[in-house]
Amino acid sequence: MQLDWLSEPTAPLNESSRQAAEARQAQLTKPPGSLGELESIAIRLAAMQGAACPTLDHAHISVFAADHGVAAEGISTFPQSVTLEMVRNFARGGAAISVLAQQLNATFEIINLGTVKDDESLQGVHHQRIAPGTANFTQQPAMTAEQLTQALDAGRQSAARAVEAGNHIFIGGEMGIGNTTSASALACALTGMPADQLAGPGTGLDQSGVNRKTEVIQQALKLHQTALDDPLETLRRLGGFEIAALTGSYIACAQKGIPVLVDGFISSVAALVAVSIDKEAKEWLLFAHKSAEPGHVRVLEALEAQPLLDIGMRLGEGSGAATALPLLRLACALHNDMATFAEAGVSESDA
Amino acid sequence: MQLDWLSEPTAPLNESSRQAAEARQAQLTKPPGSLGELESIAIRLAAMQGAACPTLDHAHISVFAADHGVAAEGISTFPQSVTLEMVRNFARGGAAISVLAQQLNATFEIINLGTVKDDESLQGVHHQRIAPGTANFTQQPAMTAEQLTQALDAGRQSAARAVEAGNHIFIGGEMGIGNTTSASALACALTGMPADQLAGPGTGLDQSGVNRKTEVIQQALKLHQTALDDPLETLRRLGGFEIAALTGSYIACAQKGIPVLVDGFISSVAALVAVSIDKEAKEWLLFAHKSAEPGHVRVLEALEAQPLLDIGMRLGEGSGAATALPLLRLACALHNDMATFAEAGVSESDA
Repeated sequence: MQLDWLSEPTAPLNESSRQAAEARQAQLTKPPGSLGELESIAIRLAAMQGAACPTLDHAHISVFAADHGVAAEGISTFPQSVTLEMVRNFARGGAAISVLAQQLNATFEIINLGTVKDDESLQGVHHQRIAPGTANFTQQPAMTAEQLTQALDAGRQSAARAVEAGNHIFIGGEMGIGNTTSASALACALTGMPADQLAGPGTGLDQSGVNRKTEVIQQALKLHQTALDDPLETLRRLGGFEIAALTGSYIACAQKGIPVLVDGFISSVAALVAVSIDKEAKEWLLFAHKSAEPGHVRVLEALEAQPLLDIGMRLGEGSGAATALPLLRLACALHNDMATFAEAGVSESDA
Repeated sequence: MQLDWLSEPTAPLNESSRQAAEARQAQLTKPPGSLGELESIAIRLAAMQGAACPTLDHAHISVFAADHGVAAEGISTFPQSVTLEMVRNFARGGAAISVLAQQLNATFEIINLGTVKDDESLQGVHHQRIAPGTANFTQQPAMTAEQLTQALDAGRQSAARAVEAGNHIFIGGEMGIGNTTSASALACALTGMPADQLAGPGTGLDQSGVNRKTEVIQQALKLHQTALDDPLETLRRLGGFEIAALTGSYIACAQKGIPVLVDGFISSVAALVAVSIDKEAKEWLLFAHKSAEPGHVRVLEALEAQPLLDIGMRLGEGSGAATALPLLRLACALHNDMATFAEAGVSESDA
């Protein structure tokens, strides 16, 4: 398996569709700009989809799950068994992202890339097991080169399935006990910010837990410090299978020309890795929400991203992105279905 | 016609349903609090609806339209004819709120309380004409006592129709060229803040236009200064038919026990009047978004309200509330449909 595909070019945006959408927005029966971000979203989607009137009828959600060796350092309040338990919960429809996918009438797939224990009997789960979790990155690189390649490719495959089935937007989600520690370490390496700026409570650490997590990240950054110039090598050493899969899916979406709606902290770190590998990929990323996880705002700043929602969510699984999707759909409906001043016989502003 | 109904008590919240909803949230398969405001919304709705599992399947949208005498002072970039033109656009499905109502599968009604010109041929519009617009409140009170009574009652009637048809939530919207000037004047009178803190660009004034608007408000506040202690008298002197109708609808919703999703600047001023008349009404109000109209944040502060969205919308019509509705519906779906830790066999946190 190769990584050559990562260097293929991203799809171009359609400038004439963007201009057509801008012109349309200016003619709709409302004061210019009065729909705020809903206007800019519709225009960006028009440029991505090469259509003056974009659509998001068919949405695809892939949730990647994997375990993390660094969980041995005691950086989560939940036991590691929860990763597989939640995979089961995803498959049976009881998790937040399962409920959201059903409400949104979205395609929903779960990809188990390596939980410590496996359960191959689960219906509706893609079993793409790489290993029973990553290695503990305070001791050694989280992944081998082959494992990183497999994880990135799993993301590429999900993006390909989403496109082949005719979906209009891709949402990635993640599950993995310990993965805010991995994501925080990656963000430190990619932004140069200190660990205490990026480590947060995750699923619910108290202050002494956050301090412990900060120390674990500092230890890992020290161990790997001479190898953190390259984003792929950084991902291999500090990442997780599910984070690498998200990175691969985002790059593949940009190459295939399907918009991505990025979820919260961990997904945004995967987006930061993707943009570090190919800065053009950013054109295809829409950011759904600002997580309550304190490091997220710093990752968003590094991406120069303005997310749509700020409602204190911090669950992951793709749940923030799924929650924002109806707003993007309404942005399209308003753009496509509102009357123009001429059609409606409404007088225009004299401003 | 009487105003006695305004002093009837608001419906009580159901504390046992609130507690049941809180207990349920704590058992769902997610870290506690990780769905952010979606959790508190579901719990508030449970208390309002008297059900541990609330629902918002059926939503009602009433848009009230009327003209304003103060438009003669040159405080809008749009001609006054636009109010009726937009009523026509609402009825024909071309306006933002029309598109949103259709997307949300909401009941949608338009109530024309008094545009300068009328068009009784319009299908689907409630013709409850009070007068061809209010009087210019820089010269005299905007309304007579009888007109205020009629406008408040029009709102009460809309709330009654919403409840009788079995709706789960009420959204009010407004249309009226000049109505940000009226709303700003009302907000000044109710909060004591100066006009330059509450006057903004509305549909698109430049700075000299905002300065003119500020002067117009100052002139009105001076004229009516001895009569602004009472919220109803303030509403009569500085309000508009559509703003008074919104106020009446909010109070009636609180009395009848149906949740209200409040839109932007003008709707929030109507809410401030409602809460000034009956502070208990606030328990029934959910705030949808922070408008780009600069005075809105000050009105929200006066209401101690935390709106859900902040996406630069400033259109009115109820559009911001309609845009936020899907998030409230997802809050209910997550609350009602997610599995508990016990149901899913997921281990809990040791925190």
